[in-house]
Amino acid sequence: MATFTVLGAGMMGSALCVPLCDRGHQVRLVGTHLDGEIVAALQSGRAHPTLGLRLPAAVRPMAFERFGEALEGAEVVALGVSSAGAQWAGAQLGDRALGDRPLFMITKGLHFDGDRLLPMVEVVRAAMGAAGAGVQPAAITGPCIAGELARRVPSSVVLSGRDEGATERIAELLRTDYYRLWTSTDVVGHGACAALKNAYAMGIAFGAGLHKSRGGQPGSLAMHNYESAVFAQAVVETRRIVVALGGRAESVVGLSGVGDLDVTTNGGRTGRFGALLGEGLSVAQAVERMEGATLECLEILAEMRRATRVMRAAGQLGPGDLPLLEHLAEVALDGVEVAVPFERFSAC
Amino acid sequence: MATFTVLGAGMMGSALCVPLCDRGHQVRLVGTHLDGEIVAALQSGRAHPTLGLRLPAAVRPMAFERFGEALEGAEVVALGVSSAGAQWAGAQLGDRALGDRPLFMITKGLHFDGDRLLPMVEVVRAAMGAAGAGVQPAAITGPCIAGELARRVPSSVVLSGRDEGATERIAELLRTDYYRLWTSTDVVGHGACAALKNAYAMGIAFGAGLHKSRGGQPGSLAMHNYESAVFAQAVVETRRIVVALGGRAESVVGLSGVGDLDVTTNGGRTGRFGALLGEGLSVAQAVERMEGATLECLEILAEMRRATRVMRAAGQLGPGDLPLLEHLAEVALDGVEVAVPFERFSAC
Repeated sequence: MATFTVLGAGMMGSALCVPLCDRGHQVRLVGTHLDGEIVAALQSGRAHPTLGLRLPAAVRPMAFERFGEALEGAEVVALGVSSAGAQWAGAQLGDRALGDRPLFMITKGLHFDGDRLLPMVEVVRAAMGAAGAGVQPAAITGPCIAGELARRVPSSVVLSGRDEGATERIAELLRTDYYRLWTSTDVVGHGACAALKNAYAMGIAFGAGLHKSRGGQPGSLAMHNYESAVFAQAVVETRRIVVALGGRAESVVGLSGVGDLDVTTNGGRTGRFGALLGEGLSVAQAVERMEGATLECLEILAEMRRATRVMRAAGQLGPGDLPLLEHLAEVALDGVEVAVPFERFSAC
Repeated sequence: MATFTVLGAGMMGSALCVPLCDRGHQVRLVGTHLDGEIVAALQSGRAHPTLGLRLPAAVRPMAFERFGEALEGAEVVALGVSSAGAQWAGAQLGDRALGDRPLFMITKGLHFDGDRLLPMVEVVRAAMGAAGAGVQPAAITGPCIAGELARRVPSSVVLSGRDEGATERIAELLRTDYYRLWTSTDVVGHGACAALKNAYAMGIAFGAGLHKSRGGQPGSLAMHNYESAVFAQAVVETRRIVVALGGRAESVVGLSGVGDLDVTTNGGRTGRFGALLGEGLSVAQAVERMEGATLECLEILAEMRRATRVMRAAGQLGPGDLPLLEHLAEVALDGVEVAVPFERFSAC
């Protein structure tokens, strides 16, 4: 049993508290400055507003002002913020003494720093400044919808970190009979898969929207052939990007790659957003219909557009390597109409 | 423009006629002895009973008695039978002179001959006897629900054959703006993916049935984490089998592997069958509820059980390589209760 401090009380940070408590750990769940309403609800014993359930009694919700206090005596630190909050969270950690306490995150994303495309663990480390030098954060990836983890649906994920022993020790503290963790040192491969799935899941869902716009009903006869061809190309392109970044191609063929892409397509908000675009709504209309839900797909497509220009110029990617990603960026960032370029795809 | 003879008037053989006619080909669609009702419906101008639509006018439906006549002057021969009919179809072809006419098939499956696990092209070739010696049949794989192809939903598939030039020539005759074909020489890799997806799609669907049996509704909160972990492991194991058979690992990461697995899970009858098992029905009860639908998953699981015993003994597979497939076989063939062994899975 250990004491965990989790920064970020959104859906995934809060869901993580459930297996932690089931393992007997004490959890200090610290909301960011955006989580005021959530912390207030939890402190008054109400359900988590977005998860829709009460967290276990061993979770102590705390406002951000008490982050320093929450770190005192905590043995493990977890970041539960979204990718947009990663740099901020890193800076907060850098200002406080972590020492050699293990750090892991559920934050997913890729950030282009003008030169290289960095996985979130590197973004956080860099934002920590001098304090980040000795830290090797680990990151959780794989198919895990927060609301399902919080309801103890069997969930299987990967914890990757460059320090193999430290990563395995964290994983061992997290495992329950419904929350299964595997470990890997391929931080870049798993991290890239986790970020890219949001962009690609948007495109896989175009077919559902197109089908609806033509008067079709959901069912076994729809536009599944279209959707699955996009799914396959998404995996093909993800592998190309992972390899170009120096990650392992193998990491795509498993939980973080095909598994997370599958869950995001079937259960995620990105899929609902993509379906609206496929139906013919403009990006602005579709964003409005999503009622403020975080849309990581727009972020990652913008980062990837900047990064792939540099990677192509450096010969790390060929000109015809990413036809689907390019079209997705055109749709999401330039307002181009959905017209998936199947003819430029590959068999594998 | 060419004249095609398609043997097998089931859903996929018949759906194939639609792009063929759109390319201006003449098509002789020959029913097997099991397709009498279909041929009668088509000959009297009615809709195809299982596809639910009329075939184009350039399709000439013919009863099996006229197969010899249907082959006269035909330039390309296609097999549209199910895997159960592959040996029979091969024998029929062997009895008639094909000469050097190109032959391709939509038949999917793997057959264990007591020694080796053979893709359908080899099964057909062997069944053709002496006439098969000079033939290199090609096979279509990838995400393609027949009813959607027949309705001209954009569909992307792979045609694989050992003779690269001949395969490309067939593909060129089949391509339309909605039916896209890529070619490959990896007959074993693509063929194994196409066969195995039926077994694995059954297991991916367990989660939906479990969720239903616990009173859950379909939606974004269900057992997607469970389903996607099974999906990921399915891809991991498929790759292991493909490599053990001498196919290319890469073929799994594309249309025939992840693409076909995705479409089968979302649109196929195998998924409905797996969901019934997940709900707690016995195999017999679930088979009854499927009302006579062909369940390739039972066939392929039986073949794979026999084959993997030999492959393990020969050192081609390790003892812990296929925990999911083993469980699926136990459920489908031995009546064991669904209890997916997540703890024996891998990250990738």
